[in-house]
Amino acid sequence: MIYLDHAAATPVSEKAQRAMLPYLADNFFNPSAAYLPSVKVRREYEAAKDQIAHIIGAKGADLVITSGATESINLAFSIIPANSEAEVLISAVEHASVLENAKRAGNYQIINVDQNGRVDLNDFRQKLSPRTQFVSVCLVCSEIGAVQPISDLARIIAEERQRRALVGDKTPLFFHCDASQGPGLMEVKVARLGVDLLTINAAKVYGPKGVGALYVGHNVRLRPLAVGGGQEMGLRSGTENVPGVMAFAAALTDAEKHIYSERKRLQELKTYITKNLSDLPNIKYIGNPKTQLPNILAISLPGFDAERLIFALEDREVYLSTGAACAASKGIKSPTLRAIGLSDEEIAGSLRLSLGKLNNQENIAEACRIIHEVVANEQARLAKK
Amino acid sequence: MIYLDHAAATPVSEKAQRAMLPYLADNFFNPSAAYLPSVKVRREYEAAKDQIAHIIGAKGADLVITSGATESINLAFSIIPANSEAEVLISAVEHASVLENAKRAGNYQIINVDQNGRVDLNDFRQKLSPRTQFVSVCLVCSEIGAVQPISDLARIIAEERQRRALVGDKTPLFFHCDASQGPGLMEVKVARLGVDLLTINAAKVYGPKGVGALYVGHNVRLRPLAVGGGQEMGLRSGTENVPGVMAFAAALTDAEKHIYSERKRLQELKTYITKNLSDLPNIKYIGNPKTQLPNILAISLPGFDAERLIFALEDREVYLSTGAACAASKGIKSPTLRAIGLSDEEIAGSLRLSLGKLNNQENIAEACRIIHEVVANEQARLAKK
Repeated sequence: MIYLDHAAATPVSEKAQRAMLPYLADNFFNPSAAYLPSVKVRREYEAAKDQIAHIIGAKGADLVITSGATESINLAFSIIPANSEAEVLISAVEHASVLENAKRAGNYQIINVDQNGRVDLNDFRQKLSPRTQFVSVCLVCSEIGAVQPISDLARIIAEERQRRALVGDKTPLFFHCDASQGPGLMEVKVARLGVDLLTINAAKVYGPKGVGALYVGHNVRLRPLAVGGGQEMGLRSGTENVPGVMAFAAALTDAEKHIYSERKRLQELKTYITKNLSDLPNIKYIGNPKTQLPNILAISLPGFDAERLIFALEDREVYLSTGAACAASKGIKSPTLRAIGLSDEEIAGSLRLSLGKLNNQENIAEACRIIHEVVANEQARLAKK
Repeated sequence: MIYLDHAAATPVSEKAQRAMLPYLADNFFNPSAAYLPSVKVRREYEAAKDQIAHIIGAKGADLVITSGATESINLAFSIIPANSEAEVLISAVEHASVLENAKRAGNYQIINVDQNGRVDLNDFRQKLSPRTQFVSVCLVCSEIGAVQPISDLARIIAEERQRRALVGDKTPLFFHCDASQGPGLMEVKVARLGVDLLTINAAKVYGPKGVGALYVGHNVRLRPLAVGGGQEMGLRSGTENVPGVMAFAAALTDAEKHIYSERKRLQELKTYITKNLSDLPNIKYIGNPKTQLPNILAISLPGFDAERLIFALEDREVYLSTGAACAASKGIKSPTLRAIGLSDEEIAGSLRLSLGKLNNQENIAEACRIIHEVVANEQARLAKK
């Protein structure tokens, strides 16, 4: 099996599993109970939160643990007052959950991206209005790997805040960044990014599914999605997922430790694939490698049906996607690829290879051989028609 | 260590762990992706949902998987239209999450309970009005173990629905039951109970924390708490917690299989404790054993400070609580114990022993010996003052 879909899911690392297991049966205590084993679990849980927070340059008390990126994103959007005139800005290359939340908020606009999938700062400046209260832009676009200019956006937002302060306009303006992709392959520090809210996700950094976090800046007052026992500073009630958080901390810490070596390793694999596949018919590399993370390689083979290629590759045990798994399963044509100006034919022939720990020089070379064969077979089939 | 707080948390059983582990690393695939290993994971995930649903007499498609009971309860309450005149009825012995949701809904009333903690059907009949749209009553009160007359409540609700239908009143009326406690110790079937919505939780039946489900009847249209990729029929977006659900299914299936033997075993332990502790000064047994589950034994030692007893027991490695962990950690005096008419002194001296798999004849006998000693010491200390 050759897995080329690390942006969709990652296996839980051994370190994360080892961190999790003792909390399933031995240290299973409810962290809210008063007796010593529970107090100890509470302390270890908080220490794990501190560890996660530290990696993004925050404190444990700034983090709300959630059941994953989607919940974090929904919680971030909860800051937008219901039935208000608040305007929301999101980029054209966001995850479904950001787009659906913007729709639910009602009054939203899409910030254009350039042909490489990066937010257009001029378009952002134009769309940012005195009524804008919420901006949400991903750190890295999961479909093409484009790293967004988050700190540039934050500067423009800071200017608008200053302007409002000067004229005595009290309309709030919050900046959320969905950093589901990025951690483990680039430094992610909330202060440097200049965000008020940041979503992170265990399942994308070799941690377990069902665990994420939302960083909440000091001046941000959220509305809880779920009320009850008052856990997570009242922002997220429910017994804490202790094993999940222990695994998340271990996974993120390990990923953080190997950022530079893993980046270099994946960059070499990506360069190899790029060179190796360059003689495929009319191949188009999507995005600009200079502003892309090395783990994602989006290509298009116009004239081919990517779905057919994916099924043919599946027969050879090479697994990859056309885009985000959630969008793909509903048969939605990628709004991201449309936003960067690809033609219908280019979109129909687009594939995403996302690399990670399950890849090495050997299986990548093998994957390239198989891709060549599958494309050649498909070309022959098309020629016969 | 002698653990007497199974109602607060349970260790993940070996069977549940074995069911979970293969999905952490080997079968980690995103169930929404199109290739075969993902399709296989999707199939297994759906089969696990079917298995959970089957146990409560439902189908997999009727279940929304959540991150636990609190989320399930919040999702159930989402059916109440915002800013409406809808009236909500809840019992006086609900979990914090039900009470907080009722408060958030705005227009709510509390159904009285009798001295055994069981809902007063006459009071319910009186409070059920033509404007009541939502009723939420727990299956088993976690603090005193009282099993609620859910099917009786359902019959009264059905009568009110019929009345509305006859007069052409289209006001909806939904019945939610928080069955966090109960599964594994009693049969829980949605049709027999007559509920529209039912909350269940893995963490109380030797499954993992961070996984629960909400049964959603066929005529019920919920509003999702979190939007995004559209998983769980659009009611709960976010990548599915596959390992958690596999473990939940295994845990619940195993618990279900041993309902009668485990009930009998715990009943014997409870009878032993009841007899053994009966010479403690002024001991009061809370609730009626005939309508209680055998895993919960609530007692009160008026004149003693339960908190002090708990800390003294902790020193002897006997772990138990005064009530619900979430309420306890916030120092809230139990509304449940107040509702059944206990005096302040009785509440201050109340302890909950909740039994389960970690208990046997030997450690229960030892726990009773230690409780006697601790109470005697505390009595001596009080006498000296």
